[in-house]
Amino acid sequence: MPRVITSHSNETIKRIRSLREKKFRVREGLFLAEGMRIVAEAVEAGAVPQMLVHAEEARGHPLLDRLIRECEAAGGDVIETTRDILHKITEKDNPQSLVGVFPIRHRQLADIDRNASFVWIVCQSLKDPGNLGTILRTADAVGAGGVILLDQSCDPFSVEAVRASMGALFTQAVVQSDAAAFFDWLRQGPGQLVGASLNTDHDYQAVRYEAPTFLFMGNEQSGLPADYEAKCDVLVKIPMAGKADSLNVAVSCAVLLYEVFNQRRRAQPAP
Amino acid sequence: MPRVITSHSNETIKRIRSLREKKFRVREGLFLAEGMRIVAEAVEAGAVPQMLVHAEEARGHPLLDRLIRECEAAGGDVIETTRDILHKITEKDNPQSLVGVFPIRHRQLADIDRNASFVWIVCQSLKDPGNLGTILRTADAVGAGGVILLDQSCDPFSVEAVRASMGALFTQAVVQSDAAAFFDWLRQGPGQLVGASLNTDHDYQAVRYEAPTFLFMGNEQSGLPADYEAKCDVLVKIPMAGKADSLNVAVSCAVLLYEVFNQRRRAQPAP
Repeated sequence: MPRVITSHSNETIKRIRSLREKKFRVREGLFLAEGMRIVAEAVEAGAVPQMLVHAEEARGHPLLDRLIRECEAAGGDVIETTRDILHKITEKDNPQSLVGVFPIRHRQLADIDRNASFVWIVCQSLKDPGNLGTILRTADAVGAGGVILLDQSCDPFSVEAVRASMGALFTQAVVQSDAAAFFDWLRQGPGQLVGASLNTDHDYQAVRYEAPTFLFMGNEQSGLPADYEAKCDVLVKIPMAGKADSLNVAVSCAVLLYEVFNQRRRAQPAP
Repeated sequence: MPRVITSHSNETIKRIRSLREKKFRVREGLFLAEGMRIVAEAVEAGAVPQMLVHAEEARGHPLLDRLIRECEAAGGDVIETTRDILHKITEKDNPQSLVGVFPIRHRQLADIDRNASFVWIVCQSLKDPGNLGTILRTADAVGAGGVILLDQSCDPFSVEAVRASMGALFTQAVVQSDAAAFFDWLRQGPGQLVGASLNTDHDYQAVRYEAPTFLFMGNEQSGLPADYEAKCDVLVKIPMAGKADSLNVAVSCAVLLYEVFNQRRRAQPAP
């Protein structure tokens, strides 16, 4: 049976709310996922919520009932609360009726089987968690293996990243790595490192992508550093015909991912 | 010579700041564009700032000096102010050193020459201004004509949309229209209406796009309404291989735009 909490000053609610900030996520090893759809995707992907907080009026929703049973069966805590408190936790005017609290899963490069997918994404100093979440969502859509974050990238467990990923944070491997360690690891096995760059004439459609492809995306403002570009097997450019000289990084990544995916679809037609 | 304003309670500053809210944008017919790069793109695209507000420490920057001269030559007002006040106007911890105030330009369907570009984007009830700005940025990159917004779409002149567009708001035509009026206008001339949909088996790469193509994107949550899909010449689907069943709308739009652009590049190779 869910615990019912209706007080804003309840310590558990305060603790859940604190997970909006990175320092508390790091301290507790927990993060938030909002919305029934994302929590359901998480549970389906094998993640076990440590806590579920739902709105009282959501009680009886068949999907929620199932999620509650699974959370309780795994020893998790279920809390029923008011829409007002959910608003406080999510900082949204129109809050989702369910918030899940999940343990942060740290993965290392050594945990990755690079041959488990034909394409991976590597991001260097990605700053915007919305971009990261969107990249994860597209990565899932093409069946990528995951995202490797180098240097000072944003936190994949932030509320904005989880929200934009629409659950893909739970299905994609996410690794935070030192750049030098990544380059070492990469060259210990197969892998084509493809840098997205403006400093090349290689049209992204003229390159033949070889599995496993590692698509290397640079920072939003400045792109890949020159010494990182030098480590790539090939640099590719997305042609542009307008006034602007760059694309949003999640858009560039999607255009490249779909090219890799489309080449693979042509080589291995669906049965 | 710029006016120097250092008081937070100055009426001009308050008025500029009010343009963050839609009701004041509508009342004044003005909107904000932040950052030297975006303001420069705006001016290059022929937009005339009614006001420029710059940080005192930016004085002497060659690009800023040029923008100031152009603004003053057109009868605009130039204000030098503190970083603190720019922070207040932009609500960013690390504010841009320049904010431009531009007149809102309302365009009608009748103002559009549909044959001026091979591709246009039509959005139905697009809710997120960041998505709209990102769509504008990609539209510019492929040389699209512009974006037609139907039903209750978000405001293209909001700070978030202008920021995400990276200046493309000034180079792309933006039209807000009633849906019935759009369908009427569309059928009075050439135009292939292509709906992005999950309710079809047409692979987006199997369709031959005909200029002018009108890519029709639905709302973030629910996609295109069935009666709008029925008005399309063809529905296309972007294949997905993962757990998720949809892409971010700005990502879908980019994948489709690049397919239309790539088909055109193949048909008309660059000289």
